Amino acid sequence: MRITSLQNPHIKNCVKLQQRKERDRQQKMVIEGYRAILRAMQNRYPLHTLYYCPELFYGQQEPDLLRDAEQAGVTLLEVSTEPFRKMTTAPRPDGLLALAPQVRHTLAGYRPRPCGFFLVAEAIEKPSNLGAIIRSADGAGADALIVCDPQVDIFNPDVLRASVGTFFTLPLLAAGPKQAIQWCRAHGVLMLAATPQAETLYTNVEMRGPVAIAVGNEQQGLSQEWLCGADISVKLPMCGQINSLNVAVAAALLLYEVVRQRNS
Amino acid sequence: MRITSLQNPHIKNCVKLQQRKERDRQQKMVIEGYRAILRAMQNRYPLHTLYYCPELFYGQQEPDLLRDAEQAGVTLLEVSTEPFRKMTTAPRPDGLLALAPQVRHTLAGYRPRPCGFFLVAEAIEKPSNLGAIIRSADGAGADALIVCDPQVDIFNPDVLRASVGTFFTLPLLAAGPKQAIQWCRAHGVLMLAATPQAETLYTNVEMRGPVAIAVGNEQQGLSQEWLCGADISVKLPMCGQINSLNVAVAAALLLYEVVRQRNS
Repeated sequence: MRITSLQNPHIKNCVKLQQRKERDRQQKMVIEGYRAILRAMQNRYPLHTLYYCPELFYGQQEPDLLRDAEQAGVTLLEVSTEPFRKMTTAPRPDGLLALAPQVRHTLAGYRPRPCGFFLVAEAIEKPSNLGAIIRSADGAGADALIVCDPQVDIFNPDVLRASVGTFFTLPLLAAGPKQAIQWCRAHGVLMLAATPQAETLYTNVEMRGPVAIAVGNEQQGLSQEWLCGADISVKLPMCGQINSLNVAVAAALLLYEVVRQRNS
Repeated sequence: MRITSLQNPHIKNCVKLQQRKERDRQQKMVIEGYRAILRAMQNRYPLHTLYYCPELFYGQQEPDLLRDAEQAGVTLLEVSTEPFRKMTTAPRPDGLLALAPQVRHTLAGYRPRPCGFFLVAEAIEKPSNLGAIIRSADGAGADALIVCDPQVDIFNPDVLRASVGTFFTLPLLAAGPKQAIQWCRAHGVLMLAATPQAETLYTNVEMRGPVAIAVGNEQQGLSQEWLCGADISVKLPMCGQINSLNVAVAAALLLYEVVRQRNS
């Protein structure tokens, strides 16, 4: 079967799923593009359906991906160019789009490794920032991202896009600020709060032990709960006229300071 | 005079200036929001006209800004809410929008300080990435950003927005890759090329002397000219499944390694 009509119910449903309300109602997410779908499969994220449009393929590896998906029990559906373009929101569609369930994990019951290394992202508003933060947390080898009170739907396609597939590579653990702080205390994880008001430079704090680094909302920064609950506040040096950095940039600097300290 | 009509030529012109073609034709740029306009004025960037809509003001400092602008010879024009909303592309308009000339600087004739510190951004495609790079370069106290063959209009409002006003705080110097490499050689500036294919970790290179760090396009990375022309290639440690970071994140890690080395 090849879907050729713009009126096909599959196409209509994928268009609907561009809206958060509909994603939440159906408890589904949309995964677009070769890299993201490959990462999902490599990390055993369950997929329902994989739509593919061979005319839009970029490379040579797509048939292998389709074969692996079919063997994993995913329903494959071929779509012609026009309806595929209608169902995708990707700026450069590559002919692959999957539907998957919204798998949610929470911090409750999660046990850290010795010397565990966590990033806490609180109340992030912009999908591209949350996605870039997930990508950097994977790059730095963090154990998990603790997502506190996100202002954005973590299943927003722009989060996935900016994460370049790392959405599926590290645990994203939902928690309220109180719960996250209690969890860190209970497990002996040092809590660092990133804020321009701190006195201590981030490079002057020992991060070789178990550590959780918290960054906050783009406009307001961290909540009072985090600012008061953390063990120590740290700042980044600001050497120019601006007094703060983009939150995804700040998160990456803190994550990679852990890497630098642990490698040196 | 208060502009109340959607048909007013000022409003129509500002809408036109949302297009790059028109900005280039008129050699104008649009500066939106209190912070960006304040930074422009503090850094003596010339403004033509300042449109303001008091109903949309957020804070109490706007009248001071208007007074300073008037004293600096800027034409002030009051606009009512509906036409103001039409002329702006800001997600949260704050009632301030200025028109200014496109002031362009080139690397030719620019002389570095001793221990000068430069970031080179080559062929960046996304306005938000270029803006975040400018912000981080200001934050790290770089002397200038060398903009090589940008794929994006540097006067795109999204560049300004992501730069949070730092567009006006540090020199943005246009140059082709050949010219930039020659300039670095001529002035004894060590050139580092950031690429995942490098053997040397970025933290293992001495950056206390005069240094220029080059980062490349979101998809392709740096050009062969930069990869071959640079003195040394450096990589960031990738500890998870992904093999590269967002370009604005990578740029910030490299910029702040210079800060760390010079402060320690």
